[in-house]
Amino acid sequence: MIIHLRKDIDQQKVQELADAMEGIIVQNHERQLLVTSSKHKQLASEFESFVVDHFVFDTDIQMANSFYGDKKRTVQLGHIQLGGSLNNTLMMTGPCSVESEEQIIKSAELCSELGVQVLRAGCFKPRTSPYSFQGMGLEGLKLLDKMRQRYGLLIITEVRDATHVDAVIEYADIVQIGAKAMYDHGILKRCGKADKPVLLKRGFGTTLQEFVQAAEFILSGGNPNVMLCERGIRTFETKTRFTLDLCGAAYLKHNTNLPVILDPSHAMGYAYGVPDLARACLAMGVEGLLIESHPDPSVAKSDATQQLDPGQFRELYQSLKQMAGALDMDLV
Amino acid sequence: MIIHLRKDIDQQKVQELADAMEGIIVQNHERQLLVTSSKHKQLASEFESFVVDHFVFDTDIQMANSFYGDKKRTVQLGHIQLGGSLNNTLMMTGPCSVESEEQIIKSAELCSELGVQVLRAGCFKPRTSPYSFQGMGLEGLKLLDKMRQRYGLLIITEVRDATHVDAVIEYADIVQIGAKAMYDHGILKRCGKADKPVLLKRGFGTTLQEFVQAAEFILSGGNPNVMLCERGIRTFETKTRFTLDLCGAAYLKHNTNLPVILDPSHAMGYAYGVPDLARACLAMGVEGLLIESHPDPSVAKSDATQQLDPGQFRELYQSLKQMAGALDMDLV
Amino acid sequence: MIIHLRKDIDQQKVQELADAMEGIIVQNHERQLLVTSSKHKQLASEFESFVVDHFVFDTDIQMANSFYGDKKRTVQLGHIQLGGSLNNTLMMTGPCSVESEEQIIKSAELCSELGVQVLRAGCFKPRTSPYSFQGMGLEGLKLLDKMRQRYGLLIITEVRDATHVDAVIEYADIVQIGAKAMYDHGILKRCGKADKPVLLKRGFGTTLQEFVQAAEFILSGGNPNVMLCERGIRTFETKTRFTLDLCGAAYLKHNTNLPVILDPSHAMGYAYGVPDLARACLAMGVEGLLIESHPDPSVAKSDATQQLDPGQFRELYQSLKQMAGALDMDLV
Amino acid sequence: MIIHLRKDIDQQKVQELADAMEGIIVQNHERQLLVTSSKHKQLASEFESFVVDHFVFDTDIQMANSFYGDKKRTVQLGHIQLGGSLNNTLMMTGPCSVESEEQIIKSAELCSELGVQVLRAGCFKPRTSPYSFQGMGLEGLKLLDKMRQRYGLLIITEVRDATHVDAVIEYADIVQIGAKAMYDHGILKRCGKADKPVLLKRGFGTTLQEFVQAAEFILSGGNPNVMLCERGIRTFETKTRFTLDLCGAAYLKHNTNLPVILDPSHAMGYAYGVPDLARACLAMGVEGLLIESHPDPSVAKSDATQQLDPGQFRELYQSLKQMAGALDMDLV
Repeated sequence: MIIHLRKDIDQQKVQELADAMEGIIVQNHERQLLVTSSKHKQLASEFESFVVDHFVFDTDIQMANSFYGDKKRTVQLGHIQLGGSLNNTLMMTGPCSVESEEQIIKSAELCSELGVQVLRAGCFKPRTSPYSFQGMGLEGLKLLDKMRQRYGLLIITEVRDATHVDAVIEYADIVQIGAKAMYDHGILKRCGKADKPVLLKRGFGTTLQEFVQAAEFILSGGNPNVMLCERGIRTFETKTRFTLDLCGAAYLKHNTNLPVILDPSHAMGYAYGVPDLARACLAMGVEGLLIESHPDPSVAKSDATQQLDPGQFRELYQSLKQMAGALDMDLV
Repeated sequence: MIIHLRKDIDQQKVQELADAMEGIIVQNHERQLLVTSSKHKQLASEFESFVVDHFVFDTDIQMANSFYGDKKRTVQLGHIQLGGSLNNTLMMTGPCSVESEEQIIKSAELCSELGVQVLRAGCFKPRTSPYSFQGMGLEGLKLLDKMRQRYGLLIITEVRDATHVDAVIEYADIVQIGAKAMYDHGILKRCGKADKPVLLKRGFGTTLQEFVQAAEFILSGGNPNVMLCERGIRTFETKTRFTLDLCGAAYLKHNTNLPVILDPSHAMGYAYGVPDLARACLAMGVEGLLIESHPDPSVAKSDATQQLDPGQFRELYQSLKQMAGALDMDLV
Repeated sequence: MIIHLRKDIDQQKVQELADAMEGIIVQNHERQLLVTSSKHKQLASEFESFVVDHFVFDTDIQMANSFYGDKKRTVQLGHIQLGGSLNNTLMMTGPCSVESEEQIIKSAELCSELGVQVLRAGCFKPRTSPYSFQGMGLEGLKLLDKMRQRYGLLIITEVRDATHVDAVIEYADIVQIGAKAMYDHGILKRCGKADKPVLLKRGFGTTLQEFVQAAEFILSGGNPNVMLCERGIRTFETKTRFTLDLCGAAYLKHNTNLPVILDPSHAMGYAYGVPDLARACLAMGVEGLLIESHPDPSVAKSDATQQLDPGQFRELYQSLKQMAGALDMDLV
Repeated sequence: MIIHLRKDIDQQKVQELADAMEGIIVQNHERQLLVTSSKHKQLASEFESFVVDHFVFDTDIQMANSFYGDKKRTVQLGHIQLGGSLNNTLMMTGPCSVESEEQIIKSAELCSELGVQVLRAGCFKPRTSPYSFQGMGLEGLKLLDKMRQRYGLLIITEVRDATHVDAVIEYADIVQIGAKAMYDHGILKRCGKADKPVLLKRGFGTTLQEFVQAAEFILSGGNPNVMLCERGIRTFETKTRFTLDLCGAAYLKHNTNLPVILDPSHAMGYAYGVPDLARACLAMGVEGLLIESHPDPSVAKSDATQQLDPGQFRELYQSLKQMAGALDMDLV
């Protein structure tokens, strides 16, 4: 149950209410909320005098529910607005990993050339093997910071575990929580207290219910700027790296109030399929696309097979621009 | 290995070659082929004088391989051509099941009104339970025949098992082999001998490799008119009925020479997501869409939740027409 | 709803009741039943005078439900009884395919030597590729018949599709419906009319609900001798061929009245894991084991990697015998 | 490649070798190792004079490989030894969560009564929803410490994220890394430096390859005491909570040198199936079982449906003891 509290009650009383209902106090710009387990279906009469409004839900998808607040949240990313009644889609591109200054400059220049506003690249890589490249870490974050300053780009980069979450929050414009980290309470709770927008990726073995509930950790922590990113789930099919779940994206669009971002690169795992899939994603009418591109994929230190080269990305971007125009959408 | 045989060798010799290599003799318009296991990588020198050309493959995806013949086959469905270098997408719609003459007339009239050329409806339903509606059977086929004659529509309907495959081949313009029947050798082999085009659906637990190999049964039986239909696979996610595998569709487009058809209705299982998914499918650049619609879904005897009502279908169809136009594609 | 009808009502009345409730009339030794959709929760008062007893269910798992009839059915396989309150487990072994008389004799002799009473081998192989060995067909059935007569073994062999179901029913003592054929209404309905026991394998993409409902087709056809066989489901894991679902086996034991058989060979796909898994299966307390063995797996025409050689099978069989003894079970 | 270095080379040289091969230096009791990516297949000749022995692998499963070192590692848990050539299986039981002193005393007393030596219970619960019970945290760890001291039990408890890993390492005898945390580099690397044995659970969407590679992070960190725990994977089947992957367990037994532990409780999700599955697990011949039990499951704050009550656990434990005896195994 989400309870909108009256503004004039004192904090001690708020805490009493929270304790009585085992609820979480959420402070946002407009008001103070108390969010309890969805098992609570009725407001006890002794609380009524402290409450402006309350909302009952079937499941613990509450603050993210499309029946709560605006049908679609507006999320602020630097100067860019997404969601709400805007009909725009954000393009984010860049390499899997920051590998060197030279490499990331080339990626930033490609963004700059085309007018792409968000540069993506990982510094703390959640690699499966301890014996492969683990990312450049803090040094990589500093290179991304340089790119932001030099090219005026927004930076999205991934937090791998709770030990460096503060550094990522400091350097990123958008904090990405990756597929392997999305159950990490250490990260989720810290991001709930952050003032940066968060892109939360669905785990490849994660149900839609669990996925949105992970977002509830951030929302109930006080950070309203959360986006959901579907990036492929693990199925029995192995000809492609993962299976992009666009039925799931349709579910998220319809049942949550959070902007939806799609990442066809990780889903497909092979560059040949990415352009067709990216066009399919745009046609879904989602708020953003995350596409991996690399100045020279053949020498990439991670995800070499799935990154587009600059020529492929340019061609895809033009086709998406044209398609967006034809469909009265705005590719930003 | 696919071997193109010289035209002037006699049939006894062809049979000897087939026996020696445990191969299948395939007769088509243009030539006689011998197709063997892909384990054969080299042509024995004593056969060379009988052979015009031969093609070696990694796996038993051979006749359907994009490295064999045209990159994309042209398939003839009545007066409609699909595939090849044509950039057109075929719309097929209608109810899950033929339920009554009144119902199927309404569906046929919707097609007729909008210019949709192919009416779909099932007569032999592969229901999971013996205690629910099993379809109208032969009576349903006769109603579909009437619609064809009255409205000039092409009919696609499903064969459930080998006991009625002859009847379906007789009455249908396009024979649909459903997701649960796609391993059925009785059906596959019979369709290989048929002169009707075949739409083969992927089983929900079927790998892409197995799926295309099922098409090889039909192709090697002598029927070149096969289309592959992705309709959702079974994954751990249960908020949607199945998971539409567009990564798999990208694989099929790239790696096979068969037209690709997509069925978002069965994948999603809920009408609310079908329009967005249908637009995504069209943006993939595939050869056809199969969309369930029903004069009144609320009273449908099967798949009630996923069928679009006439108003929803009209709206979707207009948006697809507009999108196709903008993308220089042709929705036929 | 399952309705036990009074014995003295005439068949015309029975038919009227069936039509009124869209139910299936089932005739068995003891009584006449009417089985309707589980949506029926109440018996209309006008029918009460024709009814001895009636049973209401949550889902269309009705005749196979552990709340209907005996908690566990007794199934008669030739002279062997399984299920009920017997605490015995049936061993069935033999090669994937009948390949030659010499080969199947060796397999039959291994059974005979050890006291295994049921010989398994396929004649109509549901191969994935048209270009590989498809089985010996009718000739194979005749060889199995010879083994039955010569060694006194019971024969279990698989029906692949409805075109040869009559032949398999004629030659087999136990009709096996394979994982790829288990949705085939042509086979299921024919087996419902047969007087042979049926071993129904779960499809690798099939839910437990669908699996048991497939058994309902046979049971409601009039054949009460059905066994359920779990043989591995398809998951994201590819280091093993399939994933043996023993949680599912526990579900079937608890929720259905049908004997449960386990096939660890197809699940694992590699001989090295079969003995440990077979011991685990026996410890589950199920009614039977299906283990692939071959006189010389290295030359097997199908499933070469997973078949045990005679030495491995002997060793496994002794360890199972010992374990059964220690656990007060009977390995028959 | 795993390289055994000569003892007499100085650390500067070791570091040079590590840098040259991008390898990890691993110090253990007996020797100093250098472990590199498995892409290295040959030792450069200039290194030969520093090397005692070296081992080449197909994949990055290296230190955990059954071809490296003993076929099965011996792991020391307090006074208990597991693995190696010992044929013993460790029982660990207790509730999902520490809920109160009274509750955990009852669980400890059950262990004490039966001779079970390891008490399990979670304090930092990786709950899916922020609005449900999150565990007692540090207070819970202190209660477990009390149980250790009072009843002489070993304690296994779970680390949820990197923010409290030090506390768990301090209080636990065996550190459990849960299914949702097993990709967490913050935890894995910290555990690599710990002197406590680690039980690593497989993620429910995790391949066997990834699972063992996660163990490589701990092993290559310098901690040789790692056990692998299979606890059910997520599949399309939803009648049970997860699907216990005993084919996977057979793979791990055969292909790694790490002790294997099985957790049927989380896999099944329902108490009714746990005893049969536990017996199946024991019959597999694994090194340990993790079974959830609770003084009163009906009031449990988490996992209520799957925990055995004391009576059910006693009965199961006796049957396992008897079975182990009959099979010449030792249940410790």
